[in-house]
Amino acid sequence: MGEIVKILTIEDEAAVRRSLVAHLEDMEYDYIEASSGSEGIALFKESNPDLVLCDLRLPGMDGLDVLSTLTELSPDTPIIIVSGANQVADAIQALKRGAWDYITKPIVDFQTLDTAMERALNRARLIKENHAYQKHLEALNIELSAALGQLREDEEAARALQSSLLPPKEAQFGEYKFRRQLFPSLLLSGDFVDYFPIGDHEVGFYIADISGHGAASAFVTVMLKTLFEKHLDAYQRDQEDVIRQPSDMLDHLNRAIYVSPIEKYLTIFYGVLDLREHRLRFCSGGQFPYPMLFDGQEIKTLTSHDKPVGLFEDSIFMQHEIDFTSVQQMLMISDGILELFPRDSARRRTEWLLQMVADGSPEIDDLVERFNIEELDEIPDDIAFLSIVRGSDDE
Amino acid sequence: MGEIVKILTIEDEAAVRRSLVAHLEDMEYDYIEASSGSEGIALFKESNPDLVLCDLRLPGMDGLDVLSTLTELSPDTPIIIVSGANQVADAIQALKRGAWDYITKPIVDFQTLDTAMERALNRARLIKENHAYQKHLEALNIELSAALGQLREDEEAARALQSSLLPPKEAQFGEYKFRRQLFPSLLLSGDFVDYFPIGDHEVGFYIADISGHGAASAFVTVMLKTLFEKHLDAYQRDQEDVIRQPSDMLDHLNRAIYVSPIEKYLTIFYGVLDLREHRLRFCSGGQFPYPMLFDGQEIKTLTSHDKPVGLFEDSIFMQHEIDFTSVQQMLMISDGILELFPRDSARRRTEWLLQMVADGSPEIDDLVERFNIEELDEIPDDIAFLSIVRGSDDE
Repeated sequence: MGEIVKILTIEDEAAVRRSLVAHLEDMEYDYIEASSGSEGIALFKESNPDLVLCDLRLPGMDGLDVLSTLTELSPDTPIIIVSGANQVADAIQALKRGAWDYITKPIVDFQTLDTAMERALNRARLIKENHAYQKHLEALNIELSAALGQLREDEEAARALQSSLLPPKEAQFGEYKFRRQLFPSLLLSGDFVDYFPIGDHEVGFYIADISGHGAASAFVTVMLKTLFEKHLDAYQRDQEDVIRQPSDMLDHLNRAIYVSPIEKYLTIFYGVLDLREHRLRFCSGGQFPYPMLFDGQEIKTLTSHDKPVGLFEDSIFMQHEIDFTSVQQMLMISDGILELFPRDSARRRTEWLLQMVADGSPEIDDLVERFNIEELDEIPDDIAFLSIVRGSDDE
Repeated sequence: MGEIVKILTIEDEAAVRRSLVAHLEDMEYDYIEASSGSEGIALFKESNPDLVLCDLRLPGMDGLDVLSTLTELSPDTPIIIVSGANQVADAIQALKRGAWDYITKPIVDFQTLDTAMERALNRARLIKENHAYQKHLEALNIELSAALGQLREDEEAARALQSSLLPPKEAQFGEYKFRRQLFPSLLLSGDFVDYFPIGDHEVGFYIADISGHGAASAFVTVMLKTLFEKHLDAYQRDQEDVIRQPSDMLDHLNRAIYVSPIEKYLTIFYGVLDLREHRLRFCSGGQFPYPMLFDGQEIKTLTSHDKPVGLFEDSIFMQHEIDFTSVQQMLMISDGILELFPRDSARRRTEWLLQMVADGSPEIDDLVERFNIEELDEIPDDIAFLSIVRGSDDE
């Protein structure tokens, strides 16, 4: 113990007190003396000793009552009874009432007293340390909760903002119903989907997956959305046609993200669907798994081998065009879905994915249920769904 | 107590044991009986009782040794000594060795025993609850730390990304040295500054303050930066001149943010400095405090009363042009700085700000020190500094 230990002796016999005090002095304890119970209690309150040596036979207030008062005042301060050998019945009472130990007078062997005091002081220190530890834990908890609350609130606000950038969960364009769902692994998503009308008979749509996940990747989804909005706006003001040409759009995205100091890249599938001619122009920037087309008979995948966007300055993005007439549903899922299958090669996992959707035209809600996504404790990577189902105009 | 309390009696006299057990049965306690110390210890280990009633005079192993063994096995299980009235010396020993209470045989008044048991069980329950509470606190701490760690890591990554969007802390363009500093109130900043060359003799620069702060506002700084980059790129590809005309630029920003579903707006001061002619074109979208110009004699402020950006569809932003020849320094600080003054009107606080910089040409580092920003426990709102100092070309 670094600090000097302070002992209060409550003892009416001056000779005994002197001998006790002389010993305490030898042991380099600090001490205070009281010759009656009431004086002892007053000194106890005043100087908050580390240990009390208390006689049982005291003038005025009885020793047992002094003991009860002191243990009530401070249950963790050790009190050792030093009393006559003929007061054993009282000794039992004292121990039952909370005395920490009992030493008989006259003290012939001070070693016994020293041992009793050391043991009591050690136990008291352990109790004190335990209290301090508990208080520390409580304070730490409050601090951690506050810090966590602040950060959560912050990310929740950002999450609300990111959500506001998403299209409605369901939108009808001509005969086509567009649906989307997003399951971020953290509060903020590095996956993104969007669909929007271009002019009066085309719809642009994309699914994108920013490298990494969480807030940093979510930042890039904002960048992506801003760039699409910008080109859509420029088209609407008759300034350019970029938004209608998927490969041009990916060229622009590639340059913007490549030149930006952000060390992120993304995979994206961008399509423009002609609602009148039922034709799809599209371009893939490394998006995987490949979009799936259902025609009521079989599943086709739109394979392509273009590079991710923002990785290389000179990437070339190929635009494709297909007849969409026989397509009943087009389904896109980001690669987070593959993490839900057992660890294996991407090829094997993709086969599993195709088996999972093989019964044809699965709705997003069915898939979410089939993969049990909403019940997962943890979503290993962001998962995005984008589905286009052909129905009738007036659904 | 919801559960049934289990009592172990260690007592060699069959008659005493029967009477004890009969009483325990009456009290609806569960009980186990042992007739020797070794049997008692074995049963204790096996069935983990809630309380032990133990005789001191036992065949074979002595009662005091049984007591020592049991308290060592489980210091928080109460042990009550039930022993002959003629064994008071042993009773004192027992209490000193950790017995919780002492009852004399023959038990004439079972009320005494009941009271002792209830008191001991209550104290044991408190100790148990305290242990459980401490364990709960420890587990909660680990959980909170983990959740906080994950969120912090997430925001730190986003912070690194946001930092990468800022210009270098110092950049020389012609005779002008541009400097900036950003002090977010949270990890992510809703204030933003940038400067960049436009062509070979102009520099664009802005200071912006998104409504709110934290991650959600930081998202909008990414949007802002993306839009500026987009217009800079379009200028560099000879497609348009928007980036060179501050009012055009603010018109574009206003529309982009107004039409976006994001419920945020921003204040911004955007200037284009002609390095050859030393003229400044600028436009303010509600930016406050007003930029300060130092000419070595006095401070002038560039007052303007345009509206914030993104709030109203039809806002008109006025472009101004001034001669910059006599300007030695231009200093812009976001309104977070005003929060560092005592609560008062914005006018009064702005006067204070002007007094703080009145000695002329203050460097950002000096101001940061003068306002003691780096020592603040908490920064109430994001604070951004942008300073342009005219010197010589080859500084």
